[in-house]
Amino acid sequence: MLQKIAIFGVGLIGGSFALALKNAGAAGHVVGVGRSRASLERALALGIIDEIATSAADAVRGADLVLLAAPVAQTGAILRAIEPALEAGTVVTDAGSTKSDVVQAARAALGNKIGQFVPGHPIAGSESNGPDAALPRLYAGKKVVIAALPENDERSLALVANAWRQCGAVIYRLSPERHDQVFAAVSHLPHLLAYALVDDIANKANADLLFQYAASGFRDFTRIAGSSPEMWRDITLANRSAMLAELDSYIAQLQRMRGMLAAGDGPALEAVFANARQAREKWIAAIESGTGTTAPQGGQQ
Amino acid sequence: MLQKIAIFGVGLIGGSFALALKNAGAAGHVVGVGRSRASLERALALGIIDEIATSAADAVRGADLVLLAAPVAQTGAILRAIEPALEAGTVVTDAGSTKSDVVQAARAALGNKIGQFVPGHPIAGSESNGPDAALPRLYAGKKVVIAALPENDERSLALVANAWRQCGAVIYRLSPERHDQVFAAVSHLPHLLAYALVDDIANKANADLLFQYAASGFRDFTRIAGSSPEMWRDITLANRSAMLAELDSYIAQLQRMRGMLAAGDGPALEAVFANARQAREKWIAAIESGTGTTAPQGGQQ
Repeated sequence: MLQKIAIFGVGLIGGSFALALKNAGAAGHVVGVGRSRASLERALALGIIDEIATSAADAVRGADLVLLAAPVAQTGAILRAIEPALEAGTVVTDAGSTKSDVVQAARAALGNKIGQFVPGHPIAGSESNGPDAALPRLYAGKKVVIAALPENDERSLALVANAWRQCGAVIYRLSPERHDQVFAAVSHLPHLLAYALVDDIANKANADLLFQYAASGFRDFTRIAGSSPEMWRDITLANRSAMLAELDSYIAQLQRMRGMLAAGDGPALEAVFANARQAREKWIAAIESGTGTTAPQGGQQ
Repeated sequence: MLQKIAIFGVGLIGGSFALALKNAGAAGHVVGVGRSRASLERALALGIIDEIATSAADAVRGADLVLLAAPVAQTGAILRAIEPALEAGTVVTDAGSTKSDVVQAARAALGNKIGQFVPGHPIAGSESNGPDAALPRLYAGKKVVIAALPENDERSLALVANAWRQCGAVIYRLSPERHDQVFAAVSHLPHLLAYALVDDIANKANADLLFQYAASGFRDFTRIAGSSPEMWRDITLANRSAMLAELDSYIAQLQRMRGMLAAGDGPALEAVFANARQAREKWIAAIESGTGTTAPQGGQQ
């Protein structure tokens, strides 16, 4: 039982964490902190939090666990604000989509308290946001990556991992750098590609005509272009070097395929398409059989 | 009432057309033709067709309407096979995803009977295929593009349009060239991009690790990479010049965004993301309000 939990950002991610722990009977008193008074009051009304903190320092004083679920660009400022009030027994974790930049900000803000900060990333979400989007089952069966630091002790790591397990999540381990490379490839780049396609079409002279004929394939392909521009600006910049490497790899792939197309090389195009379909079918089969969750590479705990 | 209908290809597209017309009481006798005897027998057993044709010529003799729903690369061969048996009152249409190449093949095969060929493209489908995937409601509320030729007379155009309307579809008109430009942008390019991403990841040394962390955003983005490689090879090659133009435009867009990323230009990236999200929301709102179907540009009929 975590007697006191402080949550910075009481929307979809932070709110669902609080609701899940409350449902599991694992949370005592939950204190919410945030920039929006309206969101905090809504979270209080919905029973997500038990108290609105009067200050960041008050929120963390005496807390067992602090979760940062605010936009990643605010990580440094929040950690600087709480550092003076951070007691030795308190563990801090976060839910940011990038990890190297978060670790850098945490080292700068926390100094010799860095061992109390356990970087995390729950692989769950939706296009909705705010306290009303929070769901007690959001993390059930989902992955949470813990990007442990050399300074983290076993107690801190176990406290964070156990909290997420009580939300129903499965814990994976990746280094912050490896985490950022992996998510650049399978999440951050696809977001950029979807935004790029919709913007490209929207800027054409005949955009209205083109959208007229866009159908369900286009809708699914571009669903992630409905995500928050501010959030994805921050993620893209925070993970800049890994993103540049993935983007260069993808542009080179498109140049190769452009060559096949220009040459009318049907067998080469079909080989790319068939390899992609086969890899995707294997991936979907692994997800559906559950091995995608229960037999991970890269370190499950 | 169409007394006799011949369908080349009795799978998802051709089978659904036959079922819809039968449900509407608009089809008399439906004859099926195809390369796979098993598919034809299955279509017969399912009541999609009433008869398996003994030859392409027999199938079209005396038919009111002939639908080509086989892969587009077979269009020329089928039209050459049926041309000698094509009577003056018979109208031929197709369901191919590209139109310029189909028109070219039809002109070569049909000669002075070209006016009897009305190019069409139903904007509907699914990842499933074969007679068992056929649904009488597949075309309900969906768009069908008719890419009329100067040689088509009003009777032929009306016969094809009315058949599709009896399937529940809404008729749009585009020239073959315009059709191919539009679908290169909103359908063919996204397919190539999705295949390209999955293949790019699958070829990396750490592909298994990467797929381990791919989640729902990746799944939707790459859904169309589950489509038939053979079919998309043919579409890509058939629409090569429009595809090259769209692919070059998209690569240039990625190069611009790469520059923003390398420069750490957050406002520029956010502007692209925000423009994309706004354009997509406007498009979704138009679909949901029905204006995407009922107030088209480009010529609704």
